[in-house]
Amino acid sequence: MTGTVVPKNPDFEARTRESFARQGVMGLLGAVLERVEPGLVQIALPFRQELSQQHGFFHAGVLATIADSAAGYAAFTLFPADAAVLTIEYKINLMAAADGERLTAVGRVLRTGRTLTVCQFDVHVEKQGRVTHCATGIETLIALVGRAGVRD
Amino acid sequence: MTGTVVPKNPDFEARTRESFARQGVMGLLGAVLERVEPGLVQIALPFRQELSQQHGFFHAGVLATIADSAAGYAAFTLFPADAAVLTIEYKINLMAAADGERLTAVGRVLRTGRTLTVCQFDVHVEKQGRVTHCATGIETLIALVGRAGVRD
Amino acid sequence: MTGTVVPKNPDFEARTRESFARQGVMGLLGAVLERVEPGLVQIALPFRQELSQQHGFFHAGVLATIADSAAGYAAFTLFPADAAVLTIEYKINLMAAADGERLTAVGRVLRTGRTLTVCQFDVHVEKQGRVTHCATGIETLIALVGRAGVRD
Amino acid sequence: MTGTVVPKNPDFEARTRESFARQGVMGLLGAVLERVEPGLVQIALPFRQELSQQHGFFHAGVLATIADSAAGYAAFTLFPADAAVLTIEYKINLMAAADGERLTAVGRVLRTGRTLTVCQFDVHVEKQGRVTHCATGIETLIALVGRAGVRD
Repeated sequence: MTGTVVPKNPDFEARTRESFARQGVMGLLGAVLERVEPGLVQIALPFRQELSQQHGFFHAGVLATIADSAAGYAAFTLFPADAAVLTIEYKINLMAAADGERLTAVGRVLRTGRTLTVCQFDVHVEKQGRVTHCATGIETLIALVGRAGVRD
Repeated sequence: MTGTVVPKNPDFEARTRESFARQGVMGLLGAVLERVEPGLVQIALPFRQELSQQHGFFHAGVLATIADSAAGYAAFTLFPADAAVLTIEYKINLMAAADGERLTAVGRVLRTGRTLTVCQFDVHVEKQGRVTHCATGIETLIALVGRAGVRD
Repeated sequence: MTGTVVPKNPDFEARTRESFARQGVMGLLGAVLERVEPGLVQIALPFRQELSQQHGFFHAGVLATIADSAAGYAAFTLFPADAAVLTIEYKINLMAAADGERLTAVGRVLRTGRTLTVCQFDVHVEKQGRVTHCATGIETLIALVGRAGVRD
Repeated sequence: MTGTVVPKNPDFEARTRESFARQGVMGLLGAVLERVEPGLVQIALPFRQELSQQHGFFHAGVLATIADSAAGYAAFTLFPADAAVLTIEYKINLMAAADGERLTAVGRVLRTGRTLTVCQFDVHVEKQGRVTHCATGIETLIALVGRAGVRD
């Protein structure tokens, strides 16, 4: 593997935004794609009761859903135009309760190769102007080329 | 830490079902609590377009959401009546595309102690009668006693 | 990915034992290759002071070293004869102190595909006849073909 | 949990160095404790054949052993004087072959609380003056107080 932050596809941003728009679950949650840069993607999510766990905080799974998408699309920005992205695995540490009005997940590419890409993600929660680093994780993605039905 | 599968709270099932019912996100997704046994919880989720990633499969985050709840409630079934459960961290491997009509997540306690519990979860997807083991993971939970606003 | 436990290489056992013998660190630790079966490898390690952490138990890293090799070689038993194995990532939970005279690590293939293989590993420690399940984890391996200097 | 980088124990450095010296495995490997700062520890390890996997690189387990100790002692620097440290779990991604003459592992505290601490670790390998970021991971530690036989 060799590291790089030069996108192989000059249309990476349009392609990322178009793929994000097809993720049904992002619409269901109300997630917003805020930043799309080479090797970096940021997704935000305002709180509502339907996103909660039993104590009224954001459910860890909801938080992980936007973190996974942020990491996956961060990898995707560096892929060639004919490659799709799939998550192989990730690990997440929930360091503080996700108690607040708004989550922000940032995914960053740590290392990208022909087949595999490793990303880090960090999630912050905002409550009445105070920002807390509530989760961090590492995710491995695979670039798939030429798989029918798996476009991007 | 010492292993055990004898629930400390005889009302563990009612308490688990009541807590599950308060998780707003389970209602949003359409998840169903199918089994609540000492040290084991199973949650099912039928597919619909709103739960998809960009290829039309279940989004990994949706899958992880029910896996996390299955593991968390499996731990919870063995907690004393005054302890709440929070996820510290988990790791998930997505071994096959979650392509199908229905997901089933089973969480099982591997080891439980006074403070920490370790669970394994496994997720299967069903497509036209064929069942595929599509994800597995390990999760660490903490038992919290006497925290205001964190009941269960 | 498709699951299988039929080894592609009939000489998998000899090839695995020969590769293990070349792992300098296994000799340094004193690890013994006990079982080599299709999709399953077991490694044992007797205690000595040089393997300890500060409390006199097996160091977590030592434990992880044999667990990683057990998982890696479990994957390797199912690889074609021209493929090398490399660990991409793993996650380990240390569920009990590794306090005892002997560790046993078993790696098992959960799912194997052309490029990636997912394994589970479990480590038990034996102390005066009592066996404790002290660690569990999940590991992702990659099969490499045609890389100079990376034979197996 | 609340984040902090002020050590509760003014003698944190002496206590960390003394505990490191008792880890038998650090001597066996030949690891050197290079930096001990509040919330940060660095450990270095020169290559020799006994530390290798089958291709002649550093074995992943050896790399993980010093990474685990770096993260554990980073947490330990912030603990009160009567608390011992144990690793609960960690996850490591091996991003490039650990091919070189020397490894350096740095552990950093991301968040520390009364019971749990989360650290990140990063490992670099140096080969003929070229430095490669070959591994990264996240680790969870627990502070133990008043356990007989578990001093630090």
